[in-house]
Amino acid sequence: MEELSHLDGQGRPRMVDVGSKEITQRTATARCSVELGTGLLADFTGGDLITKKGGVIQTAVVAGIMAAKQTSALIPMCHPLPLDHCAIEIVPDGPATLAVTCTCKTSARTGVEMEALTGASVAALTVYDMCKARNPAIVISALRLLEKRGGKSDYSAPA
Amino acid sequence: MEELSHLDGQGRPRMVDVGSKEITQRTATARCSVELGTGLLADFTGGDLITKKGGVIQTAVVAGIMAAKQTSALIPMCHPLPLDHCAIEIVPDGPATLAVTCTCKTSARTGVEMEALTGASVAALTVYDMCKARNPAIVISALRLLEKRGGKSDYSAPA
Amino acid sequence: MEELSHLDGQGRPRMVDVGSKEITQRTATARCSVELGTGLLADFTGGDLITKKGGVIQTAVVAGIMAAKQTSALIPMCHPLPLDHCAIEIVPDGPATLAVTCTCKTSARTGVEMEALTGASVAALTVYDMCKARNPAIVISALRLLEKRGGKSDYSAPA
Amino acid sequence: MEELSHLDGQGRPRMVDVGSKEITQRTATARCSVELGTGLLADFTGGDLITKKGGVIQTAVVAGIMAAKQTSALIPMCHPLPLDHCAIEIVPDGPATLAVTCTCKTSARTGVEMEALTGASVAALTVYDMCKARNPAIVISALRLLEKRGGKSDYSAPA
Amino acid sequence: MEELSHLDGQGRPRMVDVGSKEITQRTATARCSVELGTGLLADFTGGDLITKKGGVIQTAVVAGIMAAKQTSALIPMCHPLPLDHCAIEIVPDGPATLAVTCTCKTSARTGVEMEALTGASVAALTVYDMCKARNPAIVISALRLLEKRGGKSDYSAPA
Amino acid sequence: MEELSHLDGQGRPRMVDVGSKEITQRTATARCSVELGTGLLADFTGGDLITKKGGVIQTAVVAGIMAAKQTSALIPMCHPLPLDHCAIEIVPDGPATLAVTCTCKTSARTGVEMEALTGASVAALTVYDMCKARNPAIVISALRLLEKRGGKSDYSAPA
Repeated sequence: MEELSHLDGQGRPRMVDVGSKEITQRTATARCSVELGTGLLADFTGGDLITKKGGVIQTAVVAGIMAAKQTSALIPMCHPLPLDHCAIEIVPDGPATLAVTCTCKTSARTGVEMEALTGASVAALTVYDMCKARNPAIVISALRLLEKRGGKSDYSAPA
Repeated sequence: MEELSHLDGQGRPRMVDVGSKEITQRTATARCSVELGTGLLADFTGGDLITKKGGVIQTAVVAGIMAAKQTSALIPMCHPLPLDHCAIEIVPDGPATLAVTCTCKTSARTGVEMEALTGASVAALTVYDMCKARNPAIVISALRLLEKRGGKSDYSAPA
Repeated sequence: MEELSHLDGQGRPRMVDVGSKEITQRTATARCSVELGTGLLADFTGGDLITKKGGVIQTAVVAGIMAAKQTSALIPMCHPLPLDHCAIEIVPDGPATLAVTCTCKTSARTGVEMEALTGASVAALTVYDMCKARNPAIVISALRLLEKRGGKSDYSAPA
Repeated sequence: MEELSHLDGQGRPRMVDVGSKEITQRTATARCSVELGTGLLADFTGGDLITKKGGVIQTAVVAGIMAAKQTSALIPMCHPLPLDHCAIEIVPDGPATLAVTCTCKTSARTGVEMEALTGASVAALTVYDMCKARNPAIVISALRLLEKRGGKSDYSAPA
Repeated sequence: MEELSHLDGQGRPRMVDVGSKEITQRTATARCSVELGTGLLADFTGGDLITKKGGVIQTAVVAGIMAAKQTSALIPMCHPLPLDHCAIEIVPDGPATLAVTCTCKTSARTGVEMEALTGASVAALTVYDMCKARNPAIVISALRLLEKRGGKSDYSAPA
Repeated sequence: MEELSHLDGQGRPRMVDVGSKEITQRTATARCSVELGTGLLADFTGGDLITKKGGVIQTAVVAGIMAAKQTSALIPMCHPLPLDHCAIEIVPDGPATLAVTCTCKTSARTGVEMEALTGASVAALTVYDMCKARNPAIVISALRLLEKRGGKSDYSAPA
């Protein structure tokens, strides 16, 4: 199963050697859903509560961006990458759910899929943390790569 | 909306003051699914490939435990906690999916839900990272708290 | 000069041994000023711009709280402490200045002065970072301990 | 207020996209003052005590350099940068004050102002930490950018 | 091989559950040697050069203490511990060697052996880093636990 | 003693300025021994126990790779480097010893000796941590640079 490139011949983990790959501009976008429940989502979208909840969304955005920068410290075989850009958008998606989307960009020898996934994941965990007193049953679902570009092969998630 | 205890009167984020809470033994368990696809899961469960894939699972377990210890550095309003225990189990769950379960324990003034959720999340992201060359469409789904005990109120996820 | 308790007999740095001190509740508050200039401060206080600038203040609050939790990783001789509480307030203070105040709390064998000072400092640096495109001449001034309580001796800054 | 480039259209924080900027050599120098009080400064400058206090200065220099390398982990919207050089100088500046100067250098798409300011700031906080048993009223003042070079526009602080 | 308590029944790594152990005062001391070679050691001990080399020793002490505080972030199955004390001594040991000794102390449910070993190790690596331009053949040898006290069983290394 | 390039004229530590050095491909390999004792090593090499002990080796490999990526955060004067590759091999070496070998690769202005030494060191410490319940007298010995290539001068350890 030679495609699992993080494992050497004996099945031991290793960082893939990217030394001979070219430096190219690479982007990746990942998304997940935070299923808040209808009552809690209403608080985010209702006019009066936007200011108060603004804190939740903005804290989650900051946490996700900071986590994206720590990806190579969290995911053992990830290469350290100089992120050129990271943006996180958190918007209502239906009557009970927030969609969290994270886009990352770099100029490097390897892609930023893990940075985008990690950013979206930690932003969603932060929403959970700040709302769990209201609803501990919040579920974070459907975390996946939407798109990556700039490496050997591009990828778009099936619609 | 005073229940959102991480936000003060002006909607600004803050760490909740837990100074007057009692130190008690607390546990929490979180779980998520990694939807690998049938082909990839077969490699994890087939006899011959266990050794090679053992690397994936063990790396993911190590990454998840190390991330659980970094929870308060990742989630902005989380209190630093002296984890007494952390264990992560990754097992097949149906024909195409791995279930990742993380259990954390502490003696502290506040709970370890976020540690358990973060541990499960980073273990799942590590599986993604190590298998994405085979299948970039892997989805991490249904991350939720299964149970917490030892605080003001216990919680069990609905079955 | 035996009062400089971080230095042993040969002048070598060391962490002070706090093993025989009692665990007590300790608080500390630190403050600094961010001299934005009149034009920039007006943007923070004017109605229309509050939302946009809200991002600056909230990001700075989050950064300061997260930094307070990292104090023992930044300041070499600081003891690791389980923070029970951290709050940061950033408010206008005169026509051209923001006041940044950080309060920390713990139950530990040593105080949280450095946590409060570090939190205020990084919150102020974050304001600088987010506004430097407008005014690179912003000055962070008068960072000092306002008050500490709960250790061998309390302290209040002279008014 | 489009000049606040860290905020997108809705006022949400984001890392600025520097992907299309050129890699150039960039330097920045920041400075602050540590107002020790006359008694404490005398201990730093007096001959016999230099060795013992050498520990304070050297520990502060090490802490400041290590913090400069952590800038992008502390300041939420800062880009990770490969520092080529960092030096910190701590010298008496008048009868009661130390001046802390930090110079950083990189070859990158964005500047190192925040690295220089963070390095100076943490070095000063370390001096505070190591001397606070003698004088908790020490004030860290006038932290500002002295100069930056190598980006779109150079900057020198007014004399 | 049930004594290898970090491995559960299936050989998967896990943090040992220390929740039911008592909090006691624990100390540990570790030591290693840095074989500099005679020429380089002479520079450390000769009078005139002490000031200049003082920088090497003090930087190594600071690095070792800071690393001891990061032990649970480096060693996957280590429990996070609130260090009460850490001291590192670096002294000549024969004509060509430095001895690096690190002592750590805590009040916790588990011991500080790894903290002491990690502190000694990183202090020695820092000496290597700062002297490698003079002698890249420096060897770090004989890193071992000298003594631990305060847990279920004490230990002293054979003389 | 101008060769000690980490110390400036006054003996104060500083990061060497590598800004004018060329970016080249650089590799380094470091090795150390873990003297387990004969009984413990037998458990690693015996057939039946490989699975269980596989956990020890794999955890150590993961820890070493993750530590190599943190080298510039641990060793004060090390430059941050974008590692292109890191691999760690842990194999029996005689009847009572494991040999730990770490190889690192980068394209940068300075070498990766410290990354290789740090990776080997933390992998060895992790073996110690996971086996210390069986044998606290394990010694980590002979940590040294085997080879470096790609900088101003190559180096190979004497055989």
